[in-house]
Amino acid sequence: MSKGHQTRRNIVARAIGVASTLGLDKVTIGSLARDMSMSKSGLFAHFKSKEQLQLAILQESAARFVEIVVSPALNQPRGEPRIRALFENWCNWINSLPGGCVFLKAASEVDDRPGTLREFLAQTQRDWLDTLAGATRIAMAEGHFRPDLDHEQFAYEAQGIFCAHQIFQRLLDDKSAGDRLRHAYETLIARSR
Amino acid sequence: MSKGHQTRRNIVARAIGVASTLGLDKVTIGSLARDMSMSKSGLFAHFKSKEQLQLAILQESAARFVEIVVSPALNQPRGEPRIRALFENWCNWINSLPGGCVFLKAASEVDDRPGTLREFLAQTQRDWLDTLAGATRIAMAEGHFRPDLDHEQFAYEAQGIFCAHQIFQRLLDDKSAGDRLRHAYETLIARSR
Repeated sequence: MSKGHQTRRNIVARAIGVASTLGLDKVTIGSLARDMSMSKSGLFAHFKSKEQLQLAILQESAARFVEIVVSPALNQPRGEPRIRALFENWCNWINSLPGGCVFLKAASEVDDRPGTLREFLAQTQRDWLDTLAGATRIAMAEGHFRPDLDHEQFAYEAQGIFCAHQIFQRLLDDKSAGDRLRHAYETLIARSR
Repeated sequence: MSKGHQTRRNIVARAIGVASTLGLDKVTIGSLARDMSMSKSGLFAHFKSKEQLQLAILQESAARFVEIVVSPALNQPRGEPRIRALFENWCNWINSLPGGCVFLKAASEVDDRPGTLREFLAQTQRDWLDTLAGATRIAMAEGHFRPDLDHEQFAYEAQGIFCAHQIFQRLLDDKSAGDRLRHAYETLIARSR
């Protein structure tokens, strides 16, 4: 990896932490440059615009999400074990970031702002819901889940369980957030059998 | 109501629409003054600071939420009918705003920013979860829901179902969002009996 490429990765890694806690809009080239002890023009040269920097944050986060959540689950047996691995890895993903899920944070910022960021984020989210729904269909085919289950509804409800965790954990500082999350997904699995 | 009081209400009503679509941070005294054809200093006199304006948005939203969601449900019979009314009114609340639930939008903005706004929002959210959990406990006492139900877990899962709707509706433009929401809460009610 070239030095320039490595620097760019370091900048994006730092920026993901800011986006996770304060949001995409609070990532500024000025404050990042200070954090990284770089000049603003040096940092600007890597991204050309704030939007390109924000897009790089989402792209790198999506790559990490696949690495932490999706790929390891594909090594698990098809059906319920894989669903369970996806949920456990999803918990790991949330805990890997200082402010919780960067996508949920960003979703709220860009959902009414048409453009590149919203398109990229919506596509990432659709891909993830398709992955969850697909793994659910496999669990139905394997006979782990009942044959009349609505696999897209399963994905909707799983998304909700993790969204609620963000509220309980981040806004309410609720100590039970992790237990509530796990209890909710265990119930979702149990009632899908 | 004095003219000054009425003007303040009109400003806050306008600001709630902005906060619902673009977020609390995008509510600026300058842009609101333009929208309302007022001078910036005239508008500033009503709120003294941007934070006071943002707090007024949350306070007025909380009052509206009680008016639209909570109060009408208290006129419904105790137990499952009241729970169902809370859910139906919650849907009306979401649809009453141009960008969906203003609290979910704001939660994501302030959850890592200690201060007045975060405190007020967290308290509003706790009050709402207590209301939901309390109505659930009543449904258990009435024999509509099973006696070993975890009423706080019920509130957690209900919150999740509505959070997921925000993603499906606002970010994904998913036509099925409303049906998925209703299906999820009907299932939550059915499996609580």
